[in-house]
Amino acid sequence: MKDVAGLINHVQNAYARCIDDGDLEAWPDFFDDDCTYKITTSDNYSLGLEAGVIFANSRGMLLDRVASLREANIYERHVYRHFLGQPWIVSQEAGEVKSETSFFVARIMRDGTTDVYATGRYIDIYKLNGGAAKLRERIVVCDSSRFDTLLALPL
Amino acid sequence: MKDVAGLINHVQNAYARCIDDGDLEAWPDFFDDDCTYKITTSDNYSLGLEAGVIFANSRGMLLDRVASLREANIYERHVYRHFLGQPWIVSQEAGEVKSETSFFVARIMRDGTTDVYATGRYIDIYKLNGGAAKLRERIVVCDSSRFDTLLALPL
Amino acid sequence: MKDVAGLINHVQNAYARCIDDGDLEAWPDFFDDDCTYKITTSDNYSLGLEAGVIFANSRGMLLDRVASLREANIYERHVYRHFLGQPWIVSQEAGEVKSETSFFVARIMRDGTTDVYATGRYIDIYKLNGGAAKLRERIVVCDSSRFDTLLALPL
Repeated sequence: MKDVAGLINHVQNAYARCIDDGDLEAWPDFFDDDCTYKITTSDNYSLGLEAGVIFANSRGMLLDRVASLREANIYERHVYRHFLGQPWIVSQEAGEVKSETSFFVARIMRDGTTDVYATGRYIDIYKLNGGAAKLRERIVVCDSSRFDTLLALPL
Repeated sequence: MKDVAGLINHVQNAYARCIDDGDLEAWPDFFDDDCTYKITTSDNYSLGLEAGVIFANSRGMLLDRVASLREANIYERHVYRHFLGQPWIVSQEAGEVKSETSFFVARIMRDGTTDVYATGRYIDIYKLNGGAAKLRERIVVCDSSRFDTLLALPL
Repeated sequence: MKDVAGLINHVQNAYARCIDDGDLEAWPDFFDDDCTYKITTSDNYSLGLEAGVIFANSRGMLLDRVASLREANIYERHVYRHFLGQPWIVSQEAGEVKSETSFFVARIMRDGTTDVYATGRYIDIYKLNGGAAKLRERIVVCDSSRFDTLLALPL
């Protein structure tokens, strides 16, 4: 159990680092080919509503998303800084780990303004393969139902 | 020492998760029957002032507090999201661990507003029993002396 | 590798605790005699600009800085609360570890106001000696280019 927690912790750290460093092209590599990525709100999640603010059900869709972000470049420039709690290992079966992790994301705008952009939980299913762990599913459950229209970079 | 740090880390994570998930009824279970729970300010703490904004000296009082929160329900609905630093093990004796841990709590109001609600230190005395660690004492020392009147959910 | 990550994590925790507890006189002890300490911005760092908002190239300069902070006492009283991500071990050679760590610093002013003061990365070179790790170099790369003129306490 301990080694799995350490592995998940390491992967989460790498994930946050990837986005915060602006290396968006590497972001889809954290996911399995066959994956679900969804951003939703705590209210919708607790009601069992399926729709999310953002939804992708393959790694290809994540790649498309990154490409369109890079090409369109319509969003005001900004960067994120992620802070993650310790992963909570919910269950561990053969080759699959379910975990939940609190996140806090600060957003730094081009003019230097820094705010608390989002807080919430990652509800994850990791597929283990050898020493690696890929996301089979990541549901990003934001605490707040108020979304900035700038929602652009991945959480 | 390392195992103790890991245990305390795990319990702190569970504590934060309990409150952030809104499972208030489970919160008193983190405390020993004979316990002290106090919320105070850094100024008062450094002056040795005993009074706290909130004070309880038994697990029963914590249960009462949760019950009254649930029944009265007079506070504006909101949720917390805790972020904790690594616990600092101050001392470890037979069956007792003293630790200090930085905390940061974001508060998310019903309308979606998110702010930095409180920062500070948990100054803890844990009683160890078998593999479990219960809080014999938690003094929540807030950095700021400005308290929101909404102070309601446990820190 | 794991032990090194644990050591760096422990030292970072002690560093944050030192500043947040206001024990500035102990802060230079985290550095090697021959050291670089610099605070700069993400923009300047990525452009390779050498100048920093704050610069010191010996532990003596850090001691001087603390002394002048204590004597002058011109800054409005405030405290920091640091939150650090897990250190990312970039490389590990004989007696030297390079690591990068996300930080988030909340600032609590005398009147109780709390804000997100700074976010960014520590880009560190640690010199290992026995069980100890001293900073040979710490470059504090702030995400925001907007610096409060109050920049006074070390980051």
